[in-house]
Amino acid sequence: MAKGLTSQSEDYSAWYNEVVQQAELADYAPVRGCMIIRPYGYALWENIQAALDRRFKETGHVNAYFPLFIPASFLAKEAEHVEGFSPELAVVTQGGGKELEEPLIVRPTSETVIGHMYAKWIQSYRDLPVLINQWANVVRWEMRPRLFLRTTEFLWQEGHTAHATQEEADAETRRMLDVYADFAETDGAVPVVRGRKSRSEKFAGAVASYSIEAMMGDGRALQSGTSHDLGQNFARAFNITYQDPDGRLEHCWTTSWGISTRIIGAIVMVHGDDSGLVLPPRLAPWQIVIVPIWKTDEERAQVLAAADRARAALSAYRVKLDDRDQLTPGFKFNDWELRGVPLRVEIGPRDVRDDKVVFARRDVPGREGKQPAPMSGLAEAAGRMLDEIQASMLQRARAFLEANTADVSDYEGLRSAVAKGFARAWWCGSGECEQKVKDDTRATTRCIPFEQPGGTGRCAVCGEPASEVAIFARAY
Amino acid sequence: MAKGLTSQSEDYSAWYNEVVQQAELADYAPVRGCMIIRPYGYALWENIQAALDRRFKETGHVNAYFPLFIPASFLAKEAEHVEGFSPELAVVTQGGGKELEEPLIVRPTSETVIGHMYAKWIQSYRDLPVLINQWANVVRWEMRPRLFLRTTEFLWQEGHTAHATQEEADAETRRMLDVYADFAETDGAVPVVRGRKSRSEKFAGAVASYSIEAMMGDGRALQSGTSHDLGQNFARAFNITYQDPDGRLEHCWTTSWGISTRIIGAIVMVHGDDSGLVLPPRLAPWQIVIVPIWKTDEERAQVLAAADRARAALSAYRVKLDDRDQLTPGFKFNDWELRGVPLRVEIGPRDVRDDKVVFARRDVPGREGKQPAPMSGLAEAAGRMLDEIQASMLQRARAFLEANTADVSDYEGLRSAVAKGFARAWWCGSGECEQKVKDDTRATTRCIPFEQPGGTGRCAVCGEPASEVAIFARAY
Repeated sequence: MAKGLTSQSEDYSAWYNEVVQQAELADYAPVRGCMIIRPYGYALWENIQAALDRRFKETGHVNAYFPLFIPASFLAKEAEHVEGFSPELAVVTQGGGKELEEPLIVRPTSETVIGHMYAKWIQSYRDLPVLINQWANVVRWEMRPRLFLRTTEFLWQEGHTAHATQEEADAETRRMLDVYADFAETDGAVPVVRGRKSRSEKFAGAVASYSIEAMMGDGRALQSGTSHDLGQNFARAFNITYQDPDGRLEHCWTTSWGISTRIIGAIVMVHGDDSGLVLPPRLAPWQIVIVPIWKTDEERAQVLAAADRARAALSAYRVKLDDRDQLTPGFKFNDWELRGVPLRVEIGPRDVRDDKVVFARRDVPGREGKQPAPMSGLAEAAGRMLDEIQASMLQRARAFLEANTADVSDYEGLRSAVAKGFARAWWCGSGECEQKVKDDTRATTRCIPFEQPGGTGRCAVCGEPASEVAIFARAY
Repeated sequence: MAKGLTSQSEDYSAWYNEVVQQAELADYAPVRGCMIIRPYGYALWENIQAALDRRFKETGHVNAYFPLFIPASFLAKEAEHVEGFSPELAVVTQGGGKELEEPLIVRPTSETVIGHMYAKWIQSYRDLPVLINQWANVVRWEMRPRLFLRTTEFLWQEGHTAHATQEEADAETRRMLDVYADFAETDGAVPVVRGRKSRSEKFAGAVASYSIEAMMGDGRALQSGTSHDLGQNFARAFNITYQDPDGRLEHCWTTSWGISTRIIGAIVMVHGDDSGLVLPPRLAPWQIVIVPIWKTDEERAQVLAAADRARAALSAYRVKLDDRDQLTPGFKFNDWELRGVPLRVEIGPRDVRDDKVVFARRDVPGREGKQPAPMSGLAEAAGRMLDEIQASMLQRARAFLEANTADVSDYEGLRSAVAKGFARAWWCGSGECEQKVKDDTRATTRCIPFEQPGGTGRCAVCGEPASEVAIFARAY
């Protein structure tokens, strides 16, 4: 129940922390930087997992499980990789009551240990491609933790594939980015910008990294999924080779791609409002909540009987009947609004008499989002309404993204655009210009979007010729 | 493909290691004591998870996720608990490049950190019961690792519940043991003995532990799931209290229960034979494999077309069409037998002509397990056959369990019974008698079965009066 949620306009960051905890999505753990995903948040994660896992399997991937611990020496085999991850590592130095001879790293990501196994499993071109995904927890030491957005331990999936050719690996990298974008937009109602990461923002050890970037309610960016073309870097470091049809030994081309519990933060911040969460129907733990309304005992019996019939009629959906006796309807409305249930079904004595219910949309507050629905044909009407809510949430978020993305041509324009949203600007590609923007505005290049205006321009920072536009934004 | 599997009678332990690795269920990790669950093994685990998770949800439980790391001080709060787990701990002493002030334990189980959170979340009797499960990895340092059976890291689920009364907690403990037994028998075709653990074998910190015990193909026992009545031990240690309807502050009664990837070892050893795995249809990654048989190119085209029709007809099942060109049918038969696919569907040119296929049961080797099945009505016939295989596997395993369980009345009888199976013997309940059996035979009390003969007897070890029989066996 909302113990007075701070409003978004007052303090967006406080709003976020409060809504995540009050809606019981997550809580801070007694270990610094770690979180607990509470049942309501975990049910959301289970729906996210199911939506992604189905897509992974449809694109030919299988799941497996690799070890939590990685020998410290493994990380050192890929120079950029170890440099990128060293500051974030958790290290096991004692096991079974003894000091370990070689410390073990709690995996920050699994390219190295998976690379080691692929070298063992892959012999021939007939063994390729290897298309494996893993659902797992990973650990990256976090000094400024925020629930879902940055925590020392988080849950994710990491896909790791090996291919015979560069073309196949490239195609896989792009295919999985498209899978992420489709998931984010279709299921999460979160519109995203797809693009390539700059050199300074790419994954440690990758040849190229791609990401989907979403815009939060405060105009900041959240990297919501990444896909990496690892070239032959890890194949060389771990000696992942195959014999081609002519008997020649070649190094594989590998990829990796991941999406994490961070995406829950995106769903909270893209859709939430001052009353709490607004969850997209396709992912919401409860899609529909039925709230019966009565005053007298006689009304109570009639209304609860009708509510039960409604629940039965709606059983194809994730439906909850809130028949708690000691709480008022008003309290329940607020409670389920805080939790973001997409569709509320109200049933009072007059509705029973008229053989109808009232639909109240979470995404359209107040009277405007209310409409009657006859008990006959209730399931179909609810299904249509959920579809409409899903579509409308995406549309609204897309309009927000577009309204807060500015095409800028000079540095002043860039500075003012990143103060409230995304700046799309010509960029010469130099790290110096990137760094200057960061120093001046705290904004970074989020990606070089696949969708380019064409032609060439002048870098918004230094004025030199530029062949691509980049998205600059402050990021979570 | 079987590279000459050692036979069970020759060396059961070697057979186990070979079949697990050759069937690609799992592999050893480069970190001592850890394993990799390969895609085929993980698909089996996913089916196990789905079968259990459905049962957990049907009994009112929800999933959540608690942190991997536990402050060392937490474990010390429950005296028996810390003593029991200390020798097995992995300890993180460095994080983010610094020595930690308080070392973090990689969870061996989560009673402590969950107890800490329950103390925070539970205020009133209205908050009870709390019925939470977690799917997670845990770490217990293992000096003599064996794939699935004993590994330093393993996957499991751990249920943790809190109740207002002892009766409710007791009922929960028993309910979840029944859920495990039902899963093992109905889905795994693994018959189990349910019972109470002896004092020396119970969980560190529990008031009482219950387990399901299965008999492996070599007569040894495998503890396949446990459920613990924790009394108020953890509630006291972590101050988990609630206000009752009269406003009095009471300690909760808590339980925990778990089943792990160990159960895969049980499925391998209960059903496997000298040709490899034999998987129960309800859990098998592939329930049906279709193997087309041809010699000429013309036959190939006809047979593959028919095989494709069969696959379409069987699409309600997890069906695989093995249309690999470069391999002989005989090779494929062996390969899928090694992997334990319950039902093979063979289609050759003559079958195409007769509009039929041949069913070959994995659980009944040779000609005896083969029978023709018309293409018309194929799905129904396959469904019946899979049901029959499932039932027959359970029946056979149950007969084996019964044939190798001996009621013994004296020490000699006990000694000879535990050399080849389970001994059911009157036991006075003393730790001395338990220890003597262990020293002499390496057998331990597996459980005091719920199903008791009634009456009293004389302890098979010391001859003193005994009120219960126990199962003694050598265990994995």
